[in-house]
Amino acid sequence: MPSITFQPTGKSVHVPPKTELVDAARSAGVEIESPCGGKGTCGKCIVRIVSGRVDASASLGMLPATAVADGYVLACRTRVPEADLTVEIPESLGRDGARISAGDESTLVRGDLLPRNWEYDTLSVKWCVAVPAPRREDGLSDLDRLTHRIQKDWGPVELDYPLSVIRKLAEELRAQAGVVTVTLIRTPERIHVIRVEPGDQTTRHYGIAVDVGTTTVSVQLVNLNLAASEGTRSDYNDQIACGLDVISRINYARRADRLAELRQRVLATVNRLVVQVAEAGGVAPADIGNAVVSGNTTMVHLLLGLPPEYIRLEPYTPTVLEVPYLTASEVGLGINPESWIYFSPGVGSYVGGDITAGMLCTDLATDTADVNLFIDIGTNGELVVGNNEFLLTCACSAGPAFEGGGIGCGMRAALGAIERVEVDPATGVPLCWTIGNVRPKGICGSGMIALLADLLRTGWLDAAGKFERSRPSPAIRIEGRHARYTLAPEGESGLAKAITIDEVDIENIIRAKAAIYAACALLLEHAGLTFGDLANVYIGGGFGRFLNLEKAVMIGLVPDLPREKFHYIGNSSLMGSYIVLVSQDYRQRQLDLARRMTYVDLSSDPKYMDQYTSALFLPHTDPDQFPSVHSLMRKCKA
Amino acid sequence: MPSITFQPTGKSVHVPPKTELVDAARSAGVEIESPCGGKGTCGKCIVRIVSGRVDASASLGMLPATAVADGYVLACRTRVPEADLTVEIPESLGRDGARISAGDESTLVRGDLLPRNWEYDTLSVKWCVAVPAPRREDGLSDLDRLTHRIQKDWGPVELDYPLSVIRKLAEELRAQAGVVTVTLIRTPERIHVIRVEPGDQTTRHYGIAVDVGTTTVSVQLVNLNLAASEGTRSDYNDQIACGLDVISRINYARRADRLAELRQRVLATVNRLVVQVAEAGGVAPADIGNAVVSGNTTMVHLLLGLPPEYIRLEPYTPTVLEVPYLTASEVGLGINPESWIYFSPGVGSYVGGDITAGMLCTDLATDTADVNLFIDIGTNGELVVGNNEFLLTCACSAGPAFEGGGIGCGMRAALGAIERVEVDPATGVPLCWTIGNVRPKGICGSGMIALLADLLRTGWLDAAGKFERSRPSPAIRIEGRHARYTLAPEGESGLAKAITIDEVDIENIIRAKAAIYAACALLLEHAGLTFGDLANVYIGGGFGRFLNLEKAVMIGLVPDLPREKFHYIGNSSLMGSYIVLVSQDYRQRQLDLARRMTYVDLSSDPKYMDQYTSALFLPHTDPDQFPSVHSLMRKCKA
Repeated sequence: MPSITFQPTGKSVHVPPKTELVDAARSAGVEIESPCGGKGTCGKCIVRIVSGRVDASASLGMLPATAVADGYVLACRTRVPEADLTVEIPESLGRDGARISAGDESTLVRGDLLPRNWEYDTLSVKWCVAVPAPRREDGLSDLDRLTHRIQKDWGPVELDYPLSVIRKLAEELRAQAGVVTVTLIRTPERIHVIRVEPGDQTTRHYGIAVDVGTTTVSVQLVNLNLAASEGTRSDYNDQIACGLDVISRINYARRADRLAELRQRVLATVNRLVVQVAEAGGVAPADIGNAVVSGNTTMVHLLLGLPPEYIRLEPYTPTVLEVPYLTASEVGLGINPESWIYFSPGVGSYVGGDITAGMLCTDLATDTADVNLFIDIGTNGELVVGNNEFLLTCACSAGPAFEGGGIGCGMRAALGAIERVEVDPATGVPLCWTIGNVRPKGICGSGMIALLADLLRTGWLDAAGKFERSRPSPAIRIEGRHARYTLAPEGESGLAKAITIDEVDIENIIRAKAAIYAACALLLEHAGLTFGDLANVYIGGGFGRFLNLEKAVMIGLVPDLPREKFHYIGNSSLMGSYIVLVSQDYRQRQLDLARRMTYVDLSSDPKYMDQYTSALFLPHTDPDQFPSVHSLMRKCKA
Repeated sequence: MPSITFQPTGKSVHVPPKTELVDAARSAGVEIESPCGGKGTCGKCIVRIVSGRVDASASLGMLPATAVADGYVLACRTRVPEADLTVEIPESLGRDGARISAGDESTLVRGDLLPRNWEYDTLSVKWCVAVPAPRREDGLSDLDRLTHRIQKDWGPVELDYPLSVIRKLAEELRAQAGVVTVTLIRTPERIHVIRVEPGDQTTRHYGIAVDVGTTTVSVQLVNLNLAASEGTRSDYNDQIACGLDVISRINYARRADRLAELRQRVLATVNRLVVQVAEAGGVAPADIGNAVVSGNTTMVHLLLGLPPEYIRLEPYTPTVLEVPYLTASEVGLGINPESWIYFSPGVGSYVGGDITAGMLCTDLATDTADVNLFIDIGTNGELVVGNNEFLLTCACSAGPAFEGGGIGCGMRAALGAIERVEVDPATGVPLCWTIGNVRPKGICGSGMIALLADLLRTGWLDAAGKFERSRPSPAIRIEGRHARYTLAPEGESGLAKAITIDEVDIENIIRAKAAIYAACALLLEHAGLTFGDLANVYIGGGFGRFLNLEKAVMIGLVPDLPREKFHYIGNSSLMGSYIVLVSQDYRQRQLDLARRMTYVDLSSDPKYMDQYTSALFLPHTDPDQFPSVHSLMRKCKA
């Protein structure tokens, strides 16, 4: 079967000849828009044949002859030939970062993480009704007739309407002879009618899942009829300009105008991503009628414009952990203004809704007696350990290193990020793979972990995070007391400068991993357990598309346990938000989990500093805690 | 007992010597502000002694000696002497119109119109609680602690909070050691917390009753703790510039920008009155936490920005009759933005919430088998007839004549309006009384009725509404085919021109009264009744402070029935709004009334035009319908 390679991502797939190019792309996990459904009328699926030959005749008449001569064809009108092909998807959809994350598997709905038995049940429902025409005799208003018609299907429940819906009602009831589609929000007591549209619009029913991280924000568009992701967009949180971690944001927010600024910045980020994801999905923002937002407690406070000061001050009391439903217009989200916004409930000032969302992707949300550990590694690290009887949680300050923050050439997992590295044992020179197979622009979390692990394995870095100085490597340059390691020299990088990493960067990474490992160890101690008692370890975070667990163990980020116990669940906060968006049962389960969790304050435990200090080594000062790593190292040296 | 006269209203009262001047004013129905409660500290009750002498010594030291020398004293520190006194209340409170309506009895709460047995029960409640301090161990957010504290008093009910309340919560819970006052809206299912203030603020609990008429808008400030009116302000509806009656407003609203303009105009009127009434009462608009709005169906549509087009078109279906609760911010009212606004329910396109509100001031809202008639005379005339078994209602287009609209020198019942007239039988020259005893600026509804009745009685006007031309009167001037009658010549009027009324004006008044009388007659016929079957006739409207019923019968505005059956209930829409504002029981009763009412469409009844034509006479073409008037006229001629 011929091999079809898609640029710029470099993804390839083997498909039988005569397969439609659109289908080949889909098989390769490459998104090509085709809103016209393959009729060849919209022209959105235009691609360029870079190498190989196809029959372009079906594209003629739909595209200019000159374009076809230049190799452009419509993917929906072109079939795979007998021989290999390289196809380029034009980068016309937006910014690099946004473009790549659309094809980023870690942010798509992962079927393997979905609950096994669950009821698909969205908060909002679209319902098409034919409302009887107005009659002089019955004395009913437009609103009365609509209410009676809805009650005929939904029972004698009270209905609420916002003014914006009432304003358009007269026209909408008369546009298509009384046939309208209502968007309903069902609560136990009443039904809220948040939208009325003429005709049958039930197919256009969307929601968004939003993960608001300190460093990264992600928005996923979900077709609520199909519970299907229609794409995800991620970007840095615009608040980064005001501080890298939550404490600096809280300090920044002390003045009311700056709190307002932080709110506007994160709203601008979210709303920009909403526009991108909606445009890419061919969806009007007004068709988005429901949203679930998950974020740490500080991010939620800042998004809502709540002063976060008391999160930082004894006794660390946030204004709100369980946010009542709010409307999009109250919150400032750029979707249907009457949409109801649900916020994943938080547990405390330092364990927020991102964690209760992420837990829904793990067995911690099931009724199992097995003890499981969930580690979410963002700018803060949060952990949950427990089973159906107890749930302990804690937080530690990891810093933004694994999302690319505070590292000279760090970046988040976007186009051009080095996500995988191998180090030549003999020369110390790296071989790098980037997201999108383009010239490197920086290194993301998974790349850093791979780099440190391989430098350690090959002996070019010691357990204290210092580069080998006794033998020369073209990649290592000594600058005074510090050494600098070149990942890509200036001529090979995608920037106007070399991509490098120095010992200060490595110290930052070690401190981040030490904070997380120490927290794991101490939280288990609080639970009277050891690592050996764990049935599963779930790791969430924004490292990249894939996390090489072997290498994460090697640097001591996670404990040295049988590898089958580990599950890298990526952006579990986003995935959990998706689950809550499409399942009211899981929304309730999340609330129950949040209320069951006990927060352990590590900062008040004197043992934490001991554990942390012991972990400031690669992998750890105590070799017994990482037997497999030390046995590997011995083998390498031998 | 000495007589004390208060200027500019001219109200007077006899009180025993040594009575405090504040109390004397109160007895006379004149409002004097004394926010300090008579301690002499605020200086707000300053008045000027125009004639007579008082002991001013108690005002010395509180007012400048020069002011006391000029006759100024504090009413709370001055006692009535042995002899008569004329006291002037300084006009410092605002515009003429606004000022007068404050002392206008027809817009104060009239105890005699209140239901006899009722439960005082407001929708919003202010409640002071002491919320426990935050503790690290309990894991509760600020919102959790407040919720638990409220639930301790109100039971395990669900609580809702708008974002604006959550935003200020952290500061407000910490301002006075956790003591806060919450404003609660109680619905059967949940409690909505619409405001949180530090400290005990339970005494500052206000609502407004709003009557939105086509011509006139009134706003009454109500102290919800005491169910007491704190003052009323009325003004013309700013929409008048866009048309005098509902049909011309509906036509004007056909373009979306003009609908928006009409909405802004009526909101500007209401909000201006809210500011005035709140300032006069020393109340911050944010302390107003509840509102009831009553208006005809078109006015409610325009206030809410709903296109009114279908009110005018077959089959006359309004968008809404029972408006769900809306917030002040949705509606655009300048009070606490989270306040819940209730709209009195309407019955049909031409019988609105002003009528269901007004009915609450009549026995139609009681469980009586007596048949009662309610006539509300505004720009439209609406009627209700019925008892505990049936309720029929109809509307007729009276036009704004009785509120001063469409009449050359017409005006509403405000300072300077001629409200009472007597005509010299010999000369035809009028003697006029104005509101506030100032120079006349125009003539209001009650003045027009009195004028026509007395011109008719004295023979200067005939039954067709034409002036006597056979004998000369200094007040009557013939101008071509029409005659013009002078109420006040240029030198005596309060304007730069004479106050006059011509035969075209009189035709307008006759058409207005004929429309109403014909509707009464026909509605009774639909019910299978005659005027003689009526137990009571309630007349509401904005004629003026008092309506001389004898004269209203004389011109044929209302039927010729025993006078004790008549009750002039003034602005019953405003009074009914007040009742709904302070009684949830009456809110429900109003809704039940609205649903029980059957609308009779007079315009489709061919008999209406016959009845109307017969009534285009003073009092009527059929003398048998007005025996007492005809017997009086015979006596006068004799």
